[in-house]
Amino acid sequence: MRRNIKAKKILFALNQLFIKYGLKKSQAYKVSSMLVNADLSGQSSHGVARIPIYLNKLEKGFLKPNAKTRIIKQTVNTASLDGNWGFGQLSADDAIKICIKKAIKKNIACVTLKKANHIGRLADFTNQAAKKNMIGIAFSNLHGTSHIVAPFGGIDRKLPTNPIAVSAPGPKKNDIFEMDLSTSATAEGKVKINYNLKKSMDKGFIIDNYGKSTRNPKDLYLDPKGAILPLGGLAGHKGFALALAVDVLGGALSTAGCTSIKKNQHGNAVTFIVIKISAFSSIRLFKENLKNLYKHVKSSRLQKGFKKILIPGEFEKENRKIFGKKGIFIDKITIKSLNSYLKKKNISITL
Amino acid sequence: MRRNIKAKKILFALNQLFIKYGLKKSQAYKVSSMLVNADLSGQSSHGVARIPIYLNKLEKGFLKPNAKTRIIKQTVNTASLDGNWGFGQLSADDAIKICIKKAIKKNIACVTLKKANHIGRLADFTNQAAKKNMIGIAFSNLHGTSHIVAPFGGIDRKLPTNPIAVSAPGPKKNDIFEMDLSTSATAEGKVKINYNLKKSMDKGFIIDNYGKSTRNPKDLYLDPKGAILPLGGLAGHKGFALALAVDVLGGALSTAGCTSIKKNQHGNAVTFIVIKISAFSSIRLFKENLKNLYKHVKSSRLQKGFKKILIPGEFEKENRKIFGKKGIFIDKITIKSLNSYLKKKNISITL
Repeated sequence: MRRNIKAKKILFALNQLFIKYGLKKSQAYKVSSMLVNADLSGQSSHGVARIPIYLNKLEKGFLKPNAKTRIIKQTVNTASLDGNWGFGQLSADDAIKICIKKAIKKNIACVTLKKANHIGRLADFTNQAAKKNMIGIAFSNLHGTSHIVAPFGGIDRKLPTNPIAVSAPGPKKNDIFEMDLSTSATAEGKVKINYNLKKSMDKGFIIDNYGKSTRNPKDLYLDPKGAILPLGGLAGHKGFALALAVDVLGGALSTAGCTSIKKNQHGNAVTFIVIKISAFSSIRLFKENLKNLYKHVKSSRLQKGFKKILIPGEFEKENRKIFGKKGIFIDKITIKSLNSYLKKKNISITL
Repeated sequence: MRRNIKAKKILFALNQLFIKYGLKKSQAYKVSSMLVNADLSGQSSHGVARIPIYLNKLEKGFLKPNAKTRIIKQTVNTASLDGNWGFGQLSADDAIKICIKKAIKKNIACVTLKKANHIGRLADFTNQAAKKNMIGIAFSNLHGTSHIVAPFGGIDRKLPTNPIAVSAPGPKKNDIFEMDLSTSATAEGKVKINYNLKKSMDKGFIIDNYGKSTRNPKDLYLDPKGAILPLGGLAGHKGFALALAVDVLGGALSTAGCTSIKKNQHGNAVTFIVIKISAFSSIRLFKENLKNLYKHVKSSRLQKGFKKILIPGEFEKENRKIFGKKGIFIDKITIKSLNSYLKKKNISITL
């Protein structure tokens, strides 16, 4: 079961909550907006449903509200950052801003970040590059834990959903080519939402603890726990390979370490690459090329059940319009949990 | 039907053939070795089976054996190259070498290449970066033609198989993390081989001209022609998004143009990114992190029918040992075609 709540209302509530947990006003707003924007974009897996986990981590001291991002090592076009276990959204925002600044001066830059708590939706960062007529690329791992995805040919949960994002300026003004995807068959948050809603999964996304394909999200969360499959089905070696590449780039390059056995604390490590388009092509020609590409793929006949071919970012853009009006859908378990935190912190808002 | 032929024998024959078609000795050797190495690595889709297409293009003047790679624009850490429709293997080799050189000096570099004929196996280039303790990343499109993959939700062939490669130094000496994959459910060359061998495909890889799933490779090559599906099955929006990202990076950034309606000439356009690991992490720590990652994913229980969890590059390495001894498998249609070209050019070798 879930309920729709106006984005403004939930944003206001979250803001208050994060401030009570020690964030500065501007920081609380940044984190809250990114989380609500994930729901608005239709990526609830990275949105409000995550907050109870954040608050729990804050209370246990694993998430440090006042942590400062530290530059460990840098050159004119590279930097290695340490998030010091603060909010991932804030340290990743620091990282992409440094990367953009360096790429403006030096055409291409690379910045890594380690010891970040959950950074949220990767495209929120790479989109910042796109808005400045640059291409933003991101690879994000999760170090210190084995998480939830099985290797290709395997049964056990060994890998995180290791996402990749690529953003670039789209053909129209304020339009962004916005690719943000996990290298697993599905994002964990999506299974979680189905679990909370008691809804079946599509076939081919998860396996039970014995390696058998299952559609019941319970099999992922209740003992003995199953796993999510890598992206690709019979070609799952590709999703698995992409996941490992993300770990090489996000985990090893950042010195965070790769996916591994459980440690005391786990978090995201990211590698951002930003490329200044004008070092290679005029922006006009670049946008013209994207326009032609969009037109070309959209001219395909459609499969049954499809209304149109969607370009990455288009679904998110449409969702933002719809959910901006309707409100975002939050499952009741999350609402209940958030309400109890609001009460606990004496905030007189009930969602 | 196919036959195994010793790599040395076929290498010798190809060398002669390419020299007769106007390549210099060292160039003929480079192109031949890359093609034979694709077969040795088990990626026949980029190997010897492609040569009849090359020779046909040479005869028609679409492939210029003496073309020189031209630098259109460059900075200390970027370059835009034009392959002038020469052999893709040679111009891509120029491109990666320039990119590596710039990254050695400037930590991270990006080089694009357009107007290249088929460049072959992407990892042959990114591996060169790995051998120098760098990470090599490549995105390759095919411009000037709509090619063979359907967009997610679509039926018509609109996209190429748009591959991505990531190479990094592996934990052991001379060991490479070698990811090279197409963003389609399968590589076109693999369907071609099944077609030549009259063998069924696995389910979920191709559709017929009416959008229906099919296992018959004929449906891809005989009128009315079907299409290959994007990587991901029900999550095919991910494979489609990756394919478009490759087109944005390979096609638009290089100014080659993206996948589109048919033009006079089509070819590969590539974007290479090379990152110097030591700007971020010691090589020792980087390798240690990969070692732990490999150990971790390999410790998974196995699905039925699997003997072990394979790290990207491991399959290729094992294949090189096996096919190095046994010889590489070439389908009879390709052998027949190559023999007729050898005869035509008065080379006294019969495969």
